[in-house]
Amino acid sequence: MNQSIPSLPTIRQAALRIAPLIHRTPVLTSQSINRMAGADIFFKCENFQKAGAFKMRGAANAVLSLPEAARAKGVATHSSGNHGQALAKAAQSVGIPAYIVMPETAPAVKQKAVAEYGAEIIFCKPTLEARETTLEAVVARTGATFVHPYNNYEVIAGQGTAVVELLEEVEELDAIIAPVGGGGLLSGTAIAAKEMRPAIQIFAGEPEGADDAFRSLAAGAIIPSSAPRTIADGLLTSLGDKTFPLIRQHVTAILTVSDQEIVYAMRLIWERMKIIIEPSCAVPLAAVLKHKGLFDQKKVGIILSGGNVDLEKLPF
Amino acid sequence: MNQSIPSLPTIRQAALRIAPLIHRTPVLTSQSINRMAGADIFFKCENFQKAGAFKMRGAANAVLSLPEAARAKGVATHSSGNHGQALAKAAQSVGIPAYIVMPETAPAVKQKAVAEYGAEIIFCKPTLEARETTLEAVVARTGATFVHPYNNYEVIAGQGTAVVELLEEVEELDAIIAPVGGGGLLSGTAIAAKEMRPAIQIFAGEPEGADDAFRSLAAGAIIPSSAPRTIADGLLTSLGDKTFPLIRQHVTAILTVSDQEIVYAMRLIWERMKIIIEPSCAVPLAAVLKHKGLFDQKKVGIILSGGNVDLEKLPF
Repeated sequence: MNQSIPSLPTIRQAALRIAPLIHRTPVLTSQSINRMAGADIFFKCENFQKAGAFKMRGAANAVLSLPEAARAKGVATHSSGNHGQALAKAAQSVGIPAYIVMPETAPAVKQKAVAEYGAEIIFCKPTLEARETTLEAVVARTGATFVHPYNNYEVIAGQGTAVVELLEEVEELDAIIAPVGGGGLLSGTAIAAKEMRPAIQIFAGEPEGADDAFRSLAAGAIIPSSAPRTIADGLLTSLGDKTFPLIRQHVTAILTVSDQEIVYAMRLIWERMKIIIEPSCAVPLAAVLKHKGLFDQKKVGIILSGGNVDLEKLPF
Repeated sequence: MNQSIPSLPTIRQAALRIAPLIHRTPVLTSQSINRMAGADIFFKCENFQKAGAFKMRGAANAVLSLPEAARAKGVATHSSGNHGQALAKAAQSVGIPAYIVMPETAPAVKQKAVAEYGAEIIFCKPTLEARETTLEAVVARTGATFVHPYNNYEVIAGQGTAVVELLEEVEELDAIIAPVGGGGLLSGTAIAAKEMRPAIQIFAGEPEGADDAFRSLAAGAIIPSSAPRTIADGLLTSLGDKTFPLIRQHVTAILTVSDQEIVYAMRLIWERMKIIIEPSCAVPLAAVLKHKGLFDQKKVGIILSGGNVDLEKLPF
C-alpha cells in the first residue's frame, strides 16, 4: 500500500494503469446554463463512467496496485453506494474476489448492482460500529485487502485522473469545482490541477446538511458530521486524516448549498443537458449558481461525479 | 420551395447550410445494451441536438432555404411538439418571425418552450380541422411560409443529415433503424444511407398503437391512423404523400412494438447510458430487442430522436 501523498506523476501513472478499466469520459457544455451562471462551464461527465461514477477510477487504481501476493485474496470495503459498486466491478474485471459490507437496510437496487458485479455481500446492522466490526471479521476470514472509499492514497490518486483528462481537453480553466463528501475526489483533483496549472483555483460544493468539510476547514481540525442529512446521499461521509490536510492546503473555499438548491441544479442539468446525474453530482453547479460573484465570466471545470439514481424515487 | 426528391448531394448541401444552427451530436455505445441485444449498437444522440430533437435539422434547412422575398415574412406551422419548438428556434436564430398553431389543450410546458424561442403562438380547438383552418388564416394574415413537419422535401433533406454524420463516424454499419411517425426522419435517413452505403438495410420502429406505416406498407397505399394512441407522443402522425413512396422504396421492414416494450427500452437507456430520451426515441431500441434475429451480431445504427420529456410525468 502506498503510504506517501500522491503527486502529479503518481496520478499520471495511475491514469496509465487504469486506462483498460475505465472510460475516457466526454466534456460537455450548455449555452443556456452558461447564460444563467454568467460563466463558461465545462462539465467532465463521470456520470458516464463505468459503474456510473468517478469511483471506478480510484477503485481500479487500488485493485491494480495490489502487491502480487495480496491479489488473489481480493478486496473488501464497507459501502452501499458507488464505491462498493466500483470496487466490485474493478475486482471482477481482473478476476479477483470482492467482499462488500452493507447495512441490511440498503435499498434492494444497490444490493442488486453489487451482486451483478459478482461480489459477495455481507450484511450488518446499520451502525458505524457494526460496519467496522463486520468488515474486520471479513478481512480476518478472507485475507482480503481493505480499500477505504476515500482515506487511501491509491484511491485519491485514481480519483485525480479525471481532472487530468479535463485539463488536457480544456487548458485555460480558471477554476475547478468538485463535490466533497469524504474528500477523495477533491484531494486527487486538487493535487493534479494545482500541479498542472498552479494559478487555478480549487473549490468544493458541499450540502448544508453534511457540512463537515466547511466546518473542519474553518476550525483547522477535522470535525466529523454527527447526524448528516441531505438528499445528496453520496456526500454523507466526513473527511479523513489523509484527505483533510490536502484539502486544507489546496482548496480556496468550501461552498455550501441547501437541498432545494441541489434539486434545482439537478433538474437544470437533466432538462438542459439531457443527461442523468444523481443529487450529489448537482452540488457543484448549485454552488456556482449561488456564488456567482466568485465565477463571473470565468472558465470553470465541474466534475460531474455520478449518475446512479433510483428512477422510482426522483425529487421532481 | 424545392419540389424534387432530395438525393445525397442535396442532403450534403443541407448539412453545410444548417451547420451554424445545429450541434454535431455524439455517437454513444453501451456494452451492457450490446450484450442484451446481441448486436453492436451505435446511438446517434439527437436528444442532445439544439431544441432537444433532430427536428432542428429539418426546420433549420427549411428556414435557410426560404427564397429571399419570403424570408422577412417568416414561417408558420401547426405543432405542439418538437417541430414547433425547432421551427421557432430556427426562425429566432436568423431573426425572422415564427407562428406556431397549437391546440388550446397543449401542455403548459410545451407552450412555454415555444414562447421562449420568441414565436407567436396561435391557439385553436384540438381538432385536425381547426388546426388546418387556423393555420390557413395565419398564413393569409402574415404571408408566412408554411413548413410542414415532415411532408416537405427541405425538411426531409435536413433530417437526413443526422445519418450522414453517423456514417462518417461509423463506416461499417449493417443496418440503420429510426422511429417513424410522419416519416420525415425515416425518409431522409433512408435516402442518405442507401446512397452512402447501398448494402445497408433500413428499418423503422413504430408503436403498435399508431402503426399506420406498418399497415400502409403492407397495403401498398397510405392508410392513416384514425385514433392513434401510444405513449410515444411524437409518433402519432401518419405518413404523407412525399414520405410514403420513399419509405416504400428504401425500407426493409417496419417493426412494431407495444407501449410496455417502449417504456422498458426507454428505462434501459436512462439507466445504462445515463442519458435522457423521450418515449418516441426508445422505439427503435425496443424493436431491436424484440426482433433479435434480424440484428444478430450486426453493427446497427440507431437514431435517438429526442430528449424532450416532462420530468413530472415519467412512465417509471
